[in-house]
Amino acid sequence: MSKEKLSIIKIGGNVIEDAAALSAFLKLFSSLEGKKVLVHGGGKRATQIAGRLGIESKMVEGRRITDAETLEVITMVYGGLVNKNIVAELQANQTNAIGFTGADANSIVSNKRPVKTIDYGFVGDIKKINTQTLELLLDNGVTPVFCAITHDGNGQLFNTNADTVACELAIGFSKRYETELCYCFEKNGVLMHVNDDNSVIDFMDSGTYEMLKMKKTFADGMIPKLENSYIALSEGVSKVIIGNPTVIVDRKQKFTTLYL
Amino acid sequence: MSKEKLSIIKIGGNVIEDAAALSAFLKLFSSLEGKKVLVHGGGKRATQIAGRLGIESKMVEGRRITDAETLEVITMVYGGLVNKNIVAELQANQTNAIGFTGADANSIVSNKRPVKTIDYGFVGDIKKINTQTLELLLDNGVTPVFCAITHDGNGQLFNTNADTVACELAIGFSKRYETELCYCFEKNGVLMHVNDDNSVIDFMDSGTYEMLKMKKTFADGMIPKLENSYIALSEGVSKVIIGNPTVIVDRKQKFTTLYL
Repeated sequence: MSKEKLSIIKIGGNVIEDAAALSAFLKLFSSLEGKKVLVHGGGKRATQIAGRLGIESKMVEGRRITDAETLEVITMVYGGLVNKNIVAELQANQTNAIGFTGADANSIVSNKRPVKTIDYGFVGDIKKINTQTLELLLDNGVTPVFCAITHDGNGQLFNTNADTVACELAIGFSKRYETELCYCFEKNGVLMHVNDDNSVIDFMDSGTYEMLKMKKTFADGMIPKLENSYIALSEGVSKVIIGNPTVIVDRKQKFTTLYL
Repeated sequence: MSKEKLSIIKIGGNVIEDAAALSAFLKLFSSLEGKKVLVHGGGKRATQIAGRLGIESKMVEGRRITDAETLEVITMVYGGLVNKNIVAELQANQTNAIGFTGADANSIVSNKRPVKTIDYGFVGDIKKINTQTLELLLDNGVTPVFCAITHDGNGQLFNTNADTVACELAIGFSKRYETELCYCFEKNGVLMHVNDDNSVIDFMDSGTYEMLKMKKTFADGMIPKLENSYIALSEGVSKVIIGNPTVIVDRKQKFTTLYL
């Protein structure tokens, strides 16, 4: 028996930061038929609010360190402000949404990232996805909306990469559903030439990816998205596509489909 | 056929503000058997964070005005910081919780409070409770945890009184469940003499309440709790009790039971 379809859509900071773009996206997302899960990043709101609270953004080797105060800001901004306003706007578009962190329904359990050369602070590496309650909701017409916060099951919340949250949820759901993972961002897809927006790669298998990566083809921010994508495909996710936010309903335009 | 029992427990700001008291309460709450819903206030965290963000708390005739900036802080602090940390700690106590605002699952729909002499800003007066998704979760062992934020169904979130949220949820659930509403606060119950903590009234009917209210027996903060309580009882809630947080599992101590 063929599995039912499920779409996991991840939107990034650039959509979150622009109220009009976010509204347009949420309308599109609401028009997308079938079972679906939304995963959102947080954008610069957390950094802005941290700044206003006098909390310094600590960076080591270009990467953000999540100390206790920063985790509080992330929990406020991603888990509260951003997530709940998205849920309210989806309700206005007749999408029956519920906001989630990984602590809600114990849905995403993480370990604190081990300290090697850098202590990233309260950053979680996902170890387990629990889909039981999420599937109950999906089967009853409810749409989960995830921010990128996870927990350790012992009361500790963690900041977690939103692309990875989307990837691990897609893998977790792929046992039960035919899962499509869609990374939406500001470009029309993966670009062959970083500065040429028209150089979208239509299809890319993992061998081509490895070759192009060695040639330094991709922007730094694209690498983790692609790494996550090939992990997802190798662990049961049916399809991974990368494109601009309209790609979730319009497949006549340019976008990138990845395959193994 | 007798209905299944459901406990609606409301905890106030004083428990939220003290991490040790909150942990102790969440342990007790987790040990409470049967179906249950937690409703929490926000305490002074929102005022503190608003202050650090340079947002002035506007009061008119002793009541807070929720302007757009204040609503953002409330959404961050109640919906994010407070709610998600409670959910994570409940998970650590083996209570499978999900955090809710009234926007989540469209569970609490409000109208913006009409402007009469005072414009309270983004404050919602509850008009409808939708329990369908909540009952699905309760029937599957999940415990909803509500902060006091509601929505209008058109994308607007509202600040709403937490005592009223608990009351309206209790009424909404009473069609399906035998519902007990429990207001937990810093005293052992309703006091006959405001300054005597030992003067707990064991039982109080609505007639006695009206009489004592005329005699100015109660502290100002107690009146809305009691008004809500008698509304709840008149609209199908089976039992309303008021006491300290331990009353949810220990009924051998002093506390107040209200009846019509």
